[in-house]
Amino acid sequence: MRKNVLNAGHVELVEYLGGDKAVVRNARRCWRSEDRSSEESDKNLIHHLINKGHKTPFEALVFTFDVKCPIFVARQWMRHRIGSYSEESLRYCVTEGEYYKPDDLPEEINRHWDRVHLYTFDMYDYFLENGLSKEQARSILPLGTYTKFYWTVNASSLMNFLKLRMDKAAQKEIRAYAFAILDMVKEVAPITFGAFEESLE
Amino acid sequence: MRKNVLNAGHVELVEYLGGDKAVVRNARRCWRSEDRSSEESDKNLIHHLINKGHKTPFEALVFTFDVKCPIFVARQWMRHRIGSYSEESLRYCVTEGEYYKPDDLPEEINRHWDRVHLYTFDMYDYFLENGLSKEQARSILPLGTYTKFYWTVNASSLMNFLKLRMDKAAQKEIRAYAFAILDMVKEVAPITFGAFEESLE
Amino acid sequence: MRKNVLNAGHVELVEYLGGDKAVVRNARRCWRSEDRSSEESDKNLIHHLINKGHKTPFEALVFTFDVKCPIFVARQWMRHRIGSYSEESLRYCVTEGEYYKPDDLPEEINRHWDRVHLYTFDMYDYFLENGLSKEQARSILPLGTYTKFYWTVNASSLMNFLKLRMDKAAQKEIRAYAFAILDMVKEVAPITFGAFEESLE
Amino acid sequence: MRKNVLNAGHVELVEYLGGDKAVVRNARRCWRSEDRSSEESDKNLIHHLINKGHKTPFEALVFTFDVKCPIFVARQWMRHRIGSYSEESLRYCVTEGEYYKPDDLPEEINRHWDRVHLYTFDMYDYFLENGLSKEQARSILPLGTYTKFYWTVNASSLMNFLKLRMDKAAQKEIRAYAFAILDMVKEVAPITFGAFEESLE
Repeated sequence: MRKNVLNAGHVELVEYLGGDKAVVRNARRCWRSEDRSSEESDKNLIHHLINKGHKTPFEALVFTFDVKCPIFVARQWMRHRIGSYSEESLRYCVTEGEYYKPDDLPEEINRHWDRVHLYTFDMYDYFLENGLSKEQARSILPLGTYTKFYWTVNASSLMNFLKLRMDKAAQKEIRAYAFAILDMVKEVAPITFGAFEESLE
Repeated sequence: MRKNVLNAGHVELVEYLGGDKAVVRNARRCWRSEDRSSEESDKNLIHHLINKGHKTPFEALVFTFDVKCPIFVARQWMRHRIGSYSEESLRYCVTEGEYYKPDDLPEEINRHWDRVHLYTFDMYDYFLENGLSKEQARSILPLGTYTKFYWTVNASSLMNFLKLRMDKAAQKEIRAYAFAILDMVKEVAPITFGAFEESLE
Repeated sequence: MRKNVLNAGHVELVEYLGGDKAVVRNARRCWRSEDRSSEESDKNLIHHLINKGHKTPFEALVFTFDVKCPIFVARQWMRHRIGSYSEESLRYCVTEGEYYKPDDLPEEINRHWDRVHLYTFDMYDYFLENGLSKEQARSILPLGTYTKFYWTVNASSLMNFLKLRMDKAAQKEIRAYAFAILDMVKEVAPITFGAFEESLE
Repeated sequence: MRKNVLNAGHVELVEYLGGDKAVVRNARRCWRSEDRSSEESDKNLIHHLINKGHKTPFEALVFTFDVKCPIFVARQWMRHRIGSYSEESLRYCVTEGEYYKPDDLPEEINRHWDRVHLYTFDMYDYFLENGLSKEQARSILPLGTYTKFYWTVNASSLMNFLKLRMDKAAQKEIRAYAFAILDMVKEVAPITFGAFEESLE
């Protein structure tokens, strides 16, 4: 599953561990209630866990995403410390020069937006050609430059991310990623993320 | 995969996410070196990561184990904070009354060992029958009583666990679990845990 | 500050870092609003952070406690992974033989309670005298045996602990520790933990 | 204690919890060896902990730093997940427009370096004046723009940071911060960070 986000980004669900069944398995371990499992009672159990804030069983459900987003979005993202990030490094890689641009900029601003980026990426190339290291030359690159990383995160930490980043108070750009992710994980673990979504209402 | 450990315990690999390929994928993201992948260079890359202590790419490789072990072993285990535990609770479940006994106890000690456990479990039953709550009655249960939990852990945290718990300075009982686990994960990610094992020598 | 808890336990606030001022300092950094500080607005700010679930600034406020509690309480405690534990080890130390006993046990149960503990601690001594290692002999010790540990924890993680462990659904024994801790930290950071306490109502 | 770092940055030790004594206190708890404390044996104990990798007792020693550094340095910094960050937000604050410039740039590059930054900050002001939100306008700001944050971190996590970021393989810019920090914490906990420094050799 892969979704395009913003003008040049994407998020892709690469692989995952567990599912609704893993959540139920782990929760029932606590009460040794494996024999009480049924479609109906499992669903009720997951809703109960969500509503009571019993988060541990959701840690058995783990996702790896491939993310491409502007660096300023990545900075918000990586403030979430319970999860793993493997990111492309501008110490070793030359930027591909893709940059974020908001939709519907007024014409004048749109023109300046492109111009300042083109000028900056030109300067970056010039600095590299004239012997500056990649790790120093990147100092001039815009925060809207796209970066790529893999993110491995369990469902408990992911729900915390989604709650904060789908919120109206969050920035529009990261909200777009959060909604795209929710759509994907609802297909993998429909009861868990269905209950989660209801809990936000 | 499942292995019996100690007199009544076991460890079972329930499911896992990723493998050697996920480690390589995440590491190559950093250098954007996906096109340099080959069997030989991937193997060298993993050895390089292990030897240099670059741990992050191993976090894309995640395991869930089903563990049955004495409570005193579980206490050592759960000091490892980077990982998830869903454990049977003696607040809600009556103990099944299985207890650890070291091999080769001298006859006299062996007899006392069984006697003190039988007496204790008898008292536990007596307390429950006489109205004490499970959560209080367990106060008398021995630290060698077996418990069960699911453990979800990434390969970086697991290697730290194995390094400390396979060490000669670790207690014999938890070492038995650590060696059993290493055998299992070597089948799932042979390059990673082969390199890890070499690094211990 | 030190409080006795249960029949033979205690919790003591050994030292701490920061206070309400540190929370305000860290929160105002986010908005660069240091110049808007006043007694009234700082108080409102902390209430706002608590009510909105903005937890990060509370991580600048850190406590170290000295805890003595039954092992079954310590097991619940150490499930809280964001914090540091340095615990007395029964691999290296001989137990001091103190054990938990609930208040107001019926006379018959009370007598059996003492008897099973005395018998067990006698056996433990006997095993040690007859050459069993401390780390193996402890296998028979009751879960109600007292243990001691230092706990270093930030205020955000502590509030999560208190919320879960002061809850009516938590076990009576750990609730007693949680309430004792709340009393202490309210003296250190009265606005923060006052707002926290209100938020529970 | 405060040190200037790079062309416009700094790091300041704001406050701390514990010291060498707290490390010794926590380590001795494990062995119940408080009565064996002496200046000589405490020093040996700390060296032993460092050399054996027994990290937990160092978590009782916690520092809060005030850091001002380029955003690309902050990005490396915040990959260290065991610690707390409260950072100035460019969603709410207008940048102060300070930017990193390496020492000893060739004259031609130096001139272009200033020019691209001035042009960019001009455009940023222009965008704000023409109704773009701060959170979107920052998209064009350079990665070398200075940011400010408070960092609360325990000594175990700090030693991991220092080991990786003082290393010759680390980027020059973050190394300058790491060395400045080591100088400061050596004054607070001379035995701990003296032993740490020796262990790197």
